[in-house]
Amino acid sequence: MSRLLETLNNIEPKDVSYEKKCRERVDLLIKPKGSLGKLEDIVIKLAGIQKNIHPKVEKKAVIVCAGDHKIIEEGVATSEKEITLIQSVNMTRGLTGVCALAKHVGAEVVVVDVGIDNEVPDCSIINRKVKYGADNFSKGPAMSREEAIQALEAGIDVAEMLIKKGVTLLATGEMGIGNTTPSSAIVSVIGGFDPSVVTGVGANLPQEKVKHKADVIRKGIELNQPNPKDGIDVLSKVGGLEIAGMAGVMIAGAANRVPVVVDGFICTAAAIIATTIEPKVKDYLFASHSSLELGASKATELLGLSTSLDMNMRLGEGTGAVLMFNLIEAATYMNDVMITFEEAGFIVD
Amino acid sequence: MSRLLETLNNIEPKDVSYEKKCRERVDLLIKPKGSLGKLEDIVIKLAGIQKNIHPKVEKKAVIVCAGDHKIIEEGVATSEKEITLIQSVNMTRGLTGVCALAKHVGAEVVVVDVGIDNEVPDCSIINRKVKYGADNFSKGPAMSREEAIQALEAGIDVAEMLIKKGVTLLATGEMGIGNTTPSSAIVSVIGGFDPSVVTGVGANLPQEKVKHKADVIRKGIELNQPNPKDGIDVLSKVGGLEIAGMAGVMIAGAANRVPVVVDGFICTAAAIIATTIEPKVKDYLFASHSSLELGASKATELLGLSTSLDMNMRLGEGTGAVLMFNLIEAATYMNDVMITFEEAGFIVD
Repeated sequence: MSRLLETLNNIEPKDVSYEKKCRERVDLLIKPKGSLGKLEDIVIKLAGIQKNIHPKVEKKAVIVCAGDHKIIEEGVATSEKEITLIQSVNMTRGLTGVCALAKHVGAEVVVVDVGIDNEVPDCSIINRKVKYGADNFSKGPAMSREEAIQALEAGIDVAEMLIKKGVTLLATGEMGIGNTTPSSAIVSVIGGFDPSVVTGVGANLPQEKVKHKADVIRKGIELNQPNPKDGIDVLSKVGGLEIAGMAGVMIAGAANRVPVVVDGFICTAAAIIATTIEPKVKDYLFASHSSLELGASKATELLGLSTSLDMNMRLGEGTGAVLMFNLIEAATYMNDVMITFEEAGFIVD
Repeated sequence: MSRLLETLNNIEPKDVSYEKKCRERVDLLIKPKGSLGKLEDIVIKLAGIQKNIHPKVEKKAVIVCAGDHKIIEEGVATSEKEITLIQSVNMTRGLTGVCALAKHVGAEVVVVDVGIDNEVPDCSIINRKVKYGADNFSKGPAMSREEAIQALEAGIDVAEMLIKKGVTLLATGEMGIGNTTPSSAIVSVIGGFDPSVVTGVGANLPQEKVKHKADVIRKGIELNQPNPKDGIDVLSKVGGLEIAGMAGVMIAGAANRVPVVVDGFICTAAAIIATTIEPKVKDYLFASHSSLELGASKATELLGLSTSLDMNMRLGEGTGAVLMFNLIEAATYMNDVMITFEEAGFIVD
């Protein structure tokens, strides 16, 4: 566990003195105080992260973690597991939703195999496969604690590799048929919700099967008895390999003072794992959009962050997070380009 | 009235056959059907506007209409009218909120004096001053019908000038101390609301003065008796010159099949005027953000559009609309870069 522990030990809280200095200046810009709302909050949080009252967004990347879920044999998803592989490969070719949106914003898309249940053909997918899919957690744990840590470390390694290459803004995305099921399980366990309250249609599961999906999750939780105070325990018992990978990315971001943008429901479940493992991780996270998936708003509330985009999206892959890159960058422009009333007084009078 | 009438006569509805063709293809892209939510809706609406299933966003501009409001002598605003002039000039120098956000997205900012109650110094502000501020509508009409038409035509002319220069995506913004007061009046009259329901703090009016502001609006409506079915009548009796200018921009956008993004509360009031004059204008409008101003959500609902950004913003100037440019452009990337399941079948198998 040394790689994970070492990274966790490197996490410091955001610097509130820089937040305060940035807030003071933002309050003096030529606009009614507070009138740029969340744009102000974003740049102020970024100032505390970067220890700079003029924080910058430079190289951007979205890390898409891929993994499969044997729990789909319980009839909780409509697609076949092959889609995880096919879409992961399509992603390296620039053809999927997140690729389109990342191209718009000038972000790199990096795909990591943390647990695809297939042989991956030769392509740019980074091979950090821990195993061939998470096990069916309605019959036993999704993975061992050791495997969960390996998957967390896969995310840490890829994030740190990108940070070393100069990336200053990260997002997480995922590809994994069936992964709303472990996500609902995580939110149920850590939030103390009955699964029925946070279980939705995922990728177009017929509404009449959603109750069955919640029942499967409830059974898995009862069987495995995850400890809600122990993020790694929840992850290993009812989580998923790509969810662990994303939580690792968030932990690495926090350890390196690099903000990480959280996508929709599944990423939010990963963020809940990461912040259960180490609460200071939250200082480095930005929420993005309000996913349409049932349970997403409760998950975001549990995480304690606020979304900025209301797009009725529920694709995943990091699509909402990448849209958020624009708003974060726009917030830095507000902070850098606008002048204060005092400065304006010299210009117009 | 010929310039306005001629422009109104040029407005055709959006082309639903292109919307349908675009929707058919979007439904086949490699994602669960409908999972990109409003991004899908945006590109489909754009396809109907541009008559092209691969619509493009090229040159972008925000037209900021400026005007004053003598009704501020009733104590409905905290700032002095000089701020309208000062901020309009600061805008031509790239220093205000909308300039910062427009710089981020690569959009031009064009400032038009439709009714600043001051002499404007030599700068790039376009002079289409109809008069020195709208009159105090709690004592009589804000302007004559003829002046309202002149102000509408100012917006039409500037928009068409930009469209001729190759602009394919417009937004409206405004600068005008006191202009939430006529905006609340417009929404009250056309929506049939009591002013108290749609009157808020504007640019930080103390909460205890908001009731007085609503009372002033109610008095103005009772005195002037605007006809809610006649947009020009409402505009002239309880509106504003910059509000008319923005409505003119929207009418010109519709007449030239160029989409216009609506900013917050004041722009939405202008959009309600434009669509009351000619309902087909709505086919060319995109809403942007949910302003924090009380009345904004009712105004957007009355207009019948849906916002995508939830930023707690209430600055105006076009700031929310310019943020929306990114989402519209991202929607075209989704449509252009993603492939269909059939195309993917040939690529991965």
